[in-house]
Amino acid sequence: MDDMNLKMRHLFDPRSIAFVGATNRTDKWGFRILSGLLHYGYRGKVYPINSSEREDILGMKPLPRVSSIPEPPDLAVIVTPQPTVLGIVNECVEKGVKACLVITAGFAELGRKEEEKLENQIVDTARKGGMMLVGPNSNGIISMPSNLYLLMSRRLERIQSGSLSITSRSGSVGTSVLALCVDRNFGFSRFVSNGNEADLHIEDYLAFYGEDETTKVILGYTEGIRDGDRFIEIAQGVNRKKPVVMLMAGSTDAGARAARYHTASSSGGSELLYQRACREAGIIRVDDIEEIFTIGASFIRQPLPKGRRVGILTIGGGWGVVASDACTRAGLDVTELPEETLKRMDNYLPWWWSRNNPVDTGASLEWRGCLEALAECQDVDMILVMWVAGKEMTPATELCPVMESLIEQYHKPIIFCSGGFETREAVEEFGKRQLVAFHSIDQAVKALSSLVGYSEYLFGYFSPAQASKG
Amino acid sequence: MDDMNLKMRHLFDPRSIAFVGATNRTDKWGFRILSGLLHYGYRGKVYPINSSEREDILGMKPLPRVSSIPEPPDLAVIVTPQPTVLGIVNECVEKGVKACLVITAGFAELGRKEEEKLENQIVDTARKGGMMLVGPNSNGIISMPSNLYLLMSRRLERIQSGSLSITSRSGSVGTSVLALCVDRNFGFSRFVSNGNEADLHIEDYLAFYGEDETTKVILGYTEGIRDGDRFIEIAQGVNRKKPVVMLMAGSTDAGARAARYHTASSSGGSELLYQRACREAGIIRVDDIEEIFTIGASFIRQPLPKGRRVGILTIGGGWGVVASDACTRAGLDVTELPEETLKRMDNYLPWWWSRNNPVDTGASLEWRGCLEALAECQDVDMILVMWVAGKEMTPATELCPVMESLIEQYHKPIIFCSGGFETREAVEEFGKRQLVAFHSIDQAVKALSSLVGYSEYLFGYFSPAQASKG
Repeated sequence: MDDMNLKMRHLFDPRSIAFVGATNRTDKWGFRILSGLLHYGYRGKVYPINSSEREDILGMKPLPRVSSIPEPPDLAVIVTPQPTVLGIVNECVEKGVKACLVITAGFAELGRKEEEKLENQIVDTARKGGMMLVGPNSNGIISMPSNLYLLMSRRLERIQSGSLSITSRSGSVGTSVLALCVDRNFGFSRFVSNGNEADLHIEDYLAFYGEDETTKVILGYTEGIRDGDRFIEIAQGVNRKKPVVMLMAGSTDAGARAARYHTASSSGGSELLYQRACREAGIIRVDDIEEIFTIGASFIRQPLPKGRRVGILTIGGGWGVVASDACTRAGLDVTELPEETLKRMDNYLPWWWSRNNPVDTGASLEWRGCLEALAECQDVDMILVMWVAGKEMTPATELCPVMESLIEQYHKPIIFCSGGFETREAVEEFGKRQLVAFHSIDQAVKALSSLVGYSEYLFGYFSPAQASKG
Repeated sequence: MDDMNLKMRHLFDPRSIAFVGATNRTDKWGFRILSGLLHYGYRGKVYPINSSEREDILGMKPLPRVSSIPEPPDLAVIVTPQPTVLGIVNECVEKGVKACLVITAGFAELGRKEEEKLENQIVDTARKGGMMLVGPNSNGIISMPSNLYLLMSRRLERIQSGSLSITSRSGSVGTSVLALCVDRNFGFSRFVSNGNEADLHIEDYLAFYGEDETTKVILGYTEGIRDGDRFIEIAQGVNRKKPVVMLMAGSTDAGARAARYHTASSSGGSELLYQRACREAGIIRVDDIEEIFTIGASFIRQPLPKGRRVGILTIGGGWGVVASDACTRAGLDVTELPEETLKRMDNYLPWWWSRNNPVDTGASLEWRGCLEALAECQDVDMILVMWVAGKEMTPATELCPVMESLIEQYHKPIIFCSGGFETREAVEEFGKRQLVAFHSIDQAVKALSSLVGYSEYLFGYFSPAQASKG
């Protein structure tokens, strides 16, 4: 881990925190965020800073200034009004604070010279003093390995440690992705709302997550990239180690205008850069917020396919037709199955079954034998299973372990989709195993094609000729 | 209502039903479907037909044959084994049955000459005898105005009468759409699983729904169209009266192959026909199963926009960026707001707000005044609201009635999206009012552009010049 990444630990795994703007007033972020930090069990030292409060804040004695702290804390959190921020950043630098999270907004994103200048002064001060700075206009940081929970917005219950890490230019998009993780029973490791990216840029977080042992898959949201060449260079290195799944926004005129006012992004016309980043650095690009989670989370447990040939198992004939169209459009090959595999299916299915891919089980519930036959088949690189996972058909508790063990045995991706609507039972059960239960066929197929795309980025393009050789 | 449509009432509003294959064996469709019919309170006369059963079936005395029925029933339902179907259809014709629903499968979809011939004989027999025939290989019919519930698959609880009607080539896709309706608190009127479309084709159901007073929006799924010119001619007429939202599948080679084995569709290469149907007949085409419901249901309460200019109100800046991109890509205009409207917003939002469209309320919860200002604004044709509808932010019970009354007052579409993840509270509350709570920004924007597309089909293209004139 290089020097920069070691420094990033002050941000994500701080041993001590100065919380500037701590207060007992429950309607203030200075109370809400601090109480969240304590609620989730941060075990490092916390110094509440408040220049006018004499009484204990959340059971801790407040200090009047950063300079009053008896040690240089690793991290300072700033939630005080905008005009006070520059002075506090100065104090932090003088105290020897290593990293600073500025949640306060009202800087370059206002689109006015005055606030932009102030933001630049803050960054200059931090950089000269060797202090890293997140934000301003950040919604916060979460870091599960350190029980660090510093987040605006409502508290998320049922959060679990896991292997997804998130870096988001936008607080609302980042929080949506987090909420999806939590709702679907998935764990995560690190979360940062990048805000205006005045000092630290998205590629800095990528670089850290790339080295971070707790992170297996990186989820990102950006509204424009400040230094395209640096971003691509770093992303190339990271993507060789672990997948980066990203929604890249602000690429239309209206989107760029919105981004400028939102996080002071100057991303106008960045669509070409986005496309270059995907091509050269292997970024896996998604189109909607839910996909950041569903496509990203599919990389946790699924192996990478060795070709483009997909086998489809379905209890719904129509679902199979829709999926075949979607696969073809995504460049996947709904391959013909060899006679040997068809013969195995004949054991499980009625005589009139279609002997075709998709394998439509029709009225038969004999999914297990068919799934095993597809997993073993040399001509199949990955599998899409469309089934009803629920008490009235096949309980998710039966489907999940079988899919899980076949994935491990045959090293092929097996993606589950419920064909249109989601059952809570499937979401919970698959989530427990860090497997995604898709309801959208389009999204499920996109997960498969994303696995293919990443595999090809790493190992070279699978030509149809290669594929047919098996 | 023409002759054909009057005849269709025998199918959807039958006064009497011969149920051929009725049984007390609970594992058989002949029991499950019939018990469903009684469970949902069908009030017409039911004649259970079983040649070998002497004991009562579900409390009714069985008759040995269709010919033993004392009157010619409006509808016959056939669930008996494939080799018996032709004989029963013959008997039905002789008895003077008006319409026949063949649930039994194993005909042309097997892709073999023998069964195809048998299917043709069945159709010839029915047509010569003046009896309409649904299927074979249909999953059934539901018709809420007659409490008619004849459906394979698990029973749907909480079904409600409403104004959506569904015609689906596929049982599994049709049932998915139904399940979405029910899950989201939406009512529906008619449902038919078309099966092989040996006699009645999708355009026949379209024509009936077009005239049917209980149907306001038509949802469809097709795997290929047997008679393209007839389909387009009928769809043109229907679409002038009410919107038809359809997923058109089997348009790739792999999809067409799957469709052939699924419902004996010979749709290979029909993509050009699909595109012609959308262009000439104004079919609103969707890409995924969930969209059949979400886009279709958006037509129930939303007025048609008079231009392409969208106003966006959001509590999440990032959501606004994503939505701006999506709107632009969909050909919508994220229009600049006039000074007058911005000034009204100034009353509700902090001084540093962006004065831009999307209207990002930031930390302010003053959504109501902003929404009213957008609804009143002459330069805005439709509105996208992205908000957190829930107890911890703005209860859906507060949002819904305001949106509802603004829709009615200003005759502009107002679409709600929760920005990435859905809360049950919003789904329920919006559903109660037959309004869709979107979670996908992409889908919400697609709903807006579909409303625009349909409006333009009816009233002519909105040029940007027209739009800017207001």
